[in-house]
Amino acid sequence: MDVVLGIDIGGTSSKLGLVQADGSIIAKRSVDTRKCRNEESFFSCLFAEIERFLEQHHSNYHCIGIGLGAPSCDEQAGVLEKAANFPFADRVPILQFFQDHFGLPVYLTKDGNAATLGEARYGAGQYLENFVLITLGTGIGGGLFLNGQLVKGHNGWAGEFGHITVEPGGRACGCGRRGCLETYASATGLRRTVLQRLTHGDQKSILRRLAASELEAKDVYLAAKMGDALSLEVFDDVGRRLGLALANLAAIFDPQAIFLAGGLAAAEDILLTPVRKYFETFVLPQLQGRISIETSALRLNEAAIAGAASLVWHHKNLITTHDECK
Amino acid sequence: MDVVLGIDIGGTSSKLGLVQADGSIIAKRSVDTRKCRNEESFFSCLFAEIERFLEQHHSNYHCIGIGLGAPSCDEQAGVLEKAANFPFADRVPILQFFQDHFGLPVYLTKDGNAATLGEARYGAGQYLENFVLITLGTGIGGGLFLNGQLVKGHNGWAGEFGHITVEPGGRACGCGRRGCLETYASATGLRRTVLQRLTHGDQKSILRRLAASELEAKDVYLAAKMGDALSLEVFDDVGRRLGLALANLAAIFDPQAIFLAGGLAAAEDILLTPVRKYFETFVLPQLQGRISIETSALRLNEAAIAGAASLVWHHKNLITTHDECK
Repeated sequence: MDVVLGIDIGGTSSKLGLVQADGSIIAKRSVDTRKCRNEESFFSCLFAEIERFLEQHHSNYHCIGIGLGAPSCDEQAGVLEKAANFPFADRVPILQFFQDHFGLPVYLTKDGNAATLGEARYGAGQYLENFVLITLGTGIGGGLFLNGQLVKGHNGWAGEFGHITVEPGGRACGCGRRGCLETYASATGLRRTVLQRLTHGDQKSILRRLAASELEAKDVYLAAKMGDALSLEVFDDVGRRLGLALANLAAIFDPQAIFLAGGLAAAEDILLTPVRKYFETFVLPQLQGRISIETSALRLNEAAIAGAASLVWHHKNLITTHDECK
Repeated sequence: MDVVLGIDIGGTSSKLGLVQADGSIIAKRSVDTRKCRNEESFFSCLFAEIERFLEQHHSNYHCIGIGLGAPSCDEQAGVLEKAANFPFADRVPILQFFQDHFGLPVYLTKDGNAATLGEARYGAGQYLENFVLITLGTGIGGGLFLNGQLVKGHNGWAGEFGHITVEPGGRACGCGRRGCLETYASATGLRRTVLQRLTHGDQKSILRRLAASELEAKDVYLAAKMGDALSLEVFDDVGRRLGLALANLAAIFDPQAIFLAGGLAAAEDILLTPVRKYFETFVLPQLQGRISIETSALRLNEAAIAGAASLVWHHKNLITTHDECK
């Protein structure tokens, strides 16, 4: 059976999936790339894992192409450009790397657009004309689906929600500036807030049992679930930052729904409850109670994997009931 | 000759224009509504002025309909809803008022959308697929033109840039919340900053020669032109607020251009120079130097008047080379 390899390239790990034409994901794997110190080791590690993954499923499936979702990419040029959370040079010709190595058709889009396409084609966005999707991972990205279409912007950079400046002169960001939303409200931003509070305060917390170097956003989530006050306060802080940013996006777009995707969205109500509370506080009175904020209808990372894979399916006109707008 | 009456309804004054099918404005008038204390006096004053205006041009032109651009309006319901800068009830059925009084076809859209349509159909936006327009008047509004289409949002509230919260807990806004962009960066916001500095500081300024109640944004512009330091500093402050907000919009949309319209945009370089400086400081490195910020190609208020009038021309299919997308 023909399948497409969908890949969500991330700063901490990349996610692979074998995807059918209807968007269903048959097999998945995560590739840890945290230890890679440069682009050579990054891609040799990633390619070796992909080959192993494809080999494993070779007897049942035939891979007809690769769809890539990646942060900070210039889709038309096929390069990663000044990618903030990677050990890379300023411009990395990722499309060429994949084409040369695999000899398959490869399509590239920004990770946020991939997830947005996944949500629009296979998730809760199927029934909506106007929505915004925000990916909360190592960084923050996202995409815009407006008037029933993906909006990529003039140079393909639309949806860079992580680089909205929320605190001029604030925390240093991987993009070279300061005070970007992702320095506070991504999984990494949440971790920074926790470490700051553990170091500079003396509030009790079960997180003190962990070594700082090992502490991850997931630990903060688990501690919050157990009622750890510091962890709950940090989620409230992230919720306030996100709630305010989403309220501003609502005044800008007036969407029907806002979807949260990516690793941090797995925190579900621990994150959604404060986000919704602050959203309703900050949103334009005319829009109060009118916009739903939900986690992605697709499972963790599946929106981006399925959306990236859909580039191949749709480009090859293998889907006959293809809606040009989506 | 057939013409359409285009009206830009504003909190301080409303602007009328007789508009031809090609967007050219034959005659204009401004109606001051500052002294109107409720909706009855507002509309009786406005209607009387409109009748006088139409009467004046009656012998040469035949008015076939009215196009309205108004802030805070629910286009589908035909009402002004919680309009922040008007002496109005929560919901004012403006469409009905106009239809009943004039017995002509009347079409309504948000003022920001009217100006955006004007720019897209008759101004510098004619050649662009992706741009944002910001109106800087008593309040701040605007519109989105993305993928070659006007984006109105789900409930028609897209483009409410004035109600982006830039300072949580900051200045009180007419919308009932605090810290909205328009409390700092509209003509009214600029005036508030000037009065605050004149009252709480002792810096020399030629503006001290004016009574506070008479001081207008235009006076601050004229003083800045003459080199008044306080006035220049206040324009720098407005430029910083706007530059940051526009840089955030750039990260969200990646537009080709951002147009400034409305009264404050008449300050041209006095405003544009600091706006561009702070925009380039705050914008995503990948977008530096790539997005032009200009004042509207159409004369003051003409974008909104012509855009509002175009609703009638396009709705009546009187334009045969009508592009459905625009």
